[in-house]
Amino acid sequence: MSSDTTPDDAEARERLTDMAAEFYDQFADGDVPSMTLPTRSKSNIVFDEDAGVWVYGDRTSTRSANSVSGARKLLKSVYTIDFLAQQLDEDRSSTLRELYYLSESWGEEEAQFNNQSESDKLVEDLEIVSGVKREDFHMRPEESGAKVMGPLRIREQTNRGDREIHCQEDVGQGGYQIPNNPDTIEFLDHDTDFVLCVETGGMRDRLVENGFDDEYNALVVHLGGQPARATRRLTKRLHDELDLPVTVFTDGDPWSYRIFGSVSYGSIKSAHLSEYLATPDAQFIGIRPADIVEYDLPTDPLGDSDVNALESELEDPRFQSDFWTEQIELQLDIGKKAEQQALASRGLDFVTDTYLPERLDEMGVL
Amino acid sequence: MSSDTTPDDAEARERLTDMAAEFYDQFADGDVPSMTLPTRSKSNIVFDEDAGVWVYGDRTSTRSANSVSGARKLLKSVYTIDFLAQQLDEDRSSTLRELYYLSESWGEEEAQFNNQSESDKLVEDLEIVSGVKREDFHMRPEESGAKVMGPLRIREQTNRGDREIHCQEDVGQGGYQIPNNPDTIEFLDHDTDFVLCVETGGMRDRLVENGFDDEYNALVVHLGGQPARATRRLTKRLHDELDLPVTVFTDGDPWSYRIFGSVSYGSIKSAHLSEYLATPDAQFIGIRPADIVEYDLPTDPLGDSDVNALESELEDPRFQSDFWTEQIELQLDIGKKAEQQALASRGLDFVTDTYLPERLDEMGVL
Repeated sequence: MSSDTTPDDAEARERLTDMAAEFYDQFADGDVPSMTLPTRSKSNIVFDEDAGVWVYGDRTSTRSANSVSGARKLLKSVYTIDFLAQQLDEDRSSTLRELYYLSESWGEEEAQFNNQSESDKLVEDLEIVSGVKREDFHMRPEESGAKVMGPLRIREQTNRGDREIHCQEDVGQGGYQIPNNPDTIEFLDHDTDFVLCVETGGMRDRLVENGFDDEYNALVVHLGGQPARATRRLTKRLHDELDLPVTVFTDGDPWSYRIFGSVSYGSIKSAHLSEYLATPDAQFIGIRPADIVEYDLPTDPLGDSDVNALESELEDPRFQSDFWTEQIELQLDIGKKAEQQALASRGLDFVTDTYLPERLDEMGVL
Repeated sequence: MSSDTTPDDAEARERLTDMAAEFYDQFADGDVPSMTLPTRSKSNIVFDEDAGVWVYGDRTSTRSANSVSGARKLLKSVYTIDFLAQQLDEDRSSTLRELYYLSESWGEEEAQFNNQSESDKLVEDLEIVSGVKREDFHMRPEESGAKVMGPLRIREQTNRGDREIHCQEDVGQGGYQIPNNPDTIEFLDHDTDFVLCVETGGMRDRLVENGFDDEYNALVVHLGGQPARATRRLTKRLHDELDLPVTVFTDGDPWSYRIFGSVSYGSIKSAHLSEYLATPDAQFIGIRPADIVEYDLPTDPLGDSDVNALESELEDPRFQSDFWTEQIELQLDIGKKAEQQALASRGLDFVTDTYLPERLDEMGVL
């Protein structure tokens, strides 16, 4: 699935119904209907060194109607394809959870889902086989995207008309709320030098209050912990389409490094979407273990689960650079972690007056 | 603390420094400095039948410098008052977490906080004694407010100037993001008949996609689980200042009834703020246990913790009406719970075409 593939509704609908047509043809030819897709287990995830993202490997599994459970899976696929095609016809959308509940209204009881993880997985399978993202089937994610503040003017296509919004001048202190499907956004013009993704709401508010976005022409994107799919997609588009450097500012602990990893390299769960969601050129600002030492930040001791997570990151292909090995080993050595707001121990303006300008300069971003 | 008390910065500063001045006077009079405040334990929370909210009772505790730990508490209070007064002078703001970290920069080591719960609690104490809300000390909550969509035009005072925003025409599909301090919002004009607070993001998106806000002149407020302080404050202001009915639409389980309870009656943790945050006239839409039966909704069985929570709600003064007793007993009887999105089992439009119009009509809101 290539990141610039955003099929229109008719094309998405066609790719969906092609799958159903294939079952039909298999029947017509006297074959047992089946569907082949990549094996979706951890053992079939490979790190694509060139693209710098996780993708599925070469192993495939076949789902065939030659067993009752296989036939039931294909039946559910056909019902789901029918629902999605109708949704596209009517220009409607729905969430994964609604699809699960909606299946209760299907006349054929065997086609109804037993639980939501079953319907979620089926939609992912359809994404993989059709090469169309679920957003293009008009399946909205349950979680909304984050907030954006910075010198960027966008046009969003909403279901009640287009809206032109400048992400500093036309929004309140809370910023612009990314819609569930950020592919409805068109970038109009901007005065942005780089994207700054921020993990916590408290730090996001600090940067906005101190006017960091304005002074440094930064587009501040609030990640809010593990970032939603919509946030990662928008970040990637800002990088690819506007050619903006992407930087990530998180707490200094192993869980936050994973947040950086999911922005930059993609996640195992959505490996078929890495090219659509991941920004391999994203750069890590900090908090780095070296910052804890250099700035003598207030810390908490590493717990057992922190140590385990750091050790598993040492083995993780996404963290195999000299930079990460050094930082992770240093952190294991000092046995401490720090939050980004710990920078406030040097005053409320230290982060915007000193820490970020110095670090971004070192990184070649400023 | 009355809900229409929004002191300006000078007044907030004065009430703070008055506290410090009192310590000074006590010293000057040869007395041991002390501070008296309501006892902040569950045993001293009473339900104010007239106002319909939780408030503190008559018991008080005195914090005196006649012990080392009492003296240390007063010292921390003085340092904190000094910081807050300076923050007001400079028209800055900060979060509770920043205050905790910032204390590490204070010259006097004895005044530094040992952990954030200590500094959080001290700020609450200062709110209670001074009668000024922490927002008026310019302490921002860590959590941001929710999203609003509906026929309302507001003016928000941001730190980069005023912004006029119509919460349908000037925002994307994601809506207007409530700022951390909603008292910076002025209501300009509106065409709103009622406020509809919605628990989940999926249902909020469904209502917006189906244009429910537009068709019924509803202001849709996304609660996002247990609502942030900013969301509850905004809801109360919409009710009090614009005289709008407030309705609450949640999942049908005991935890969601508590969400309704915190919107309408306030919470034990913030009993000193009930008059500022709670909307006792708020009405519960559902999902009601009776809806589970009437609409034959897809359900999950009640777990042990659900049953315990329901039983404790039967004893809770906030749920002592006939309506709630009947609903909770019915739920214990059927042993089931349902999510709001379970309404999708009757089609994606059932909630906006049938369920909400019928229920709101019954409730006298439409």
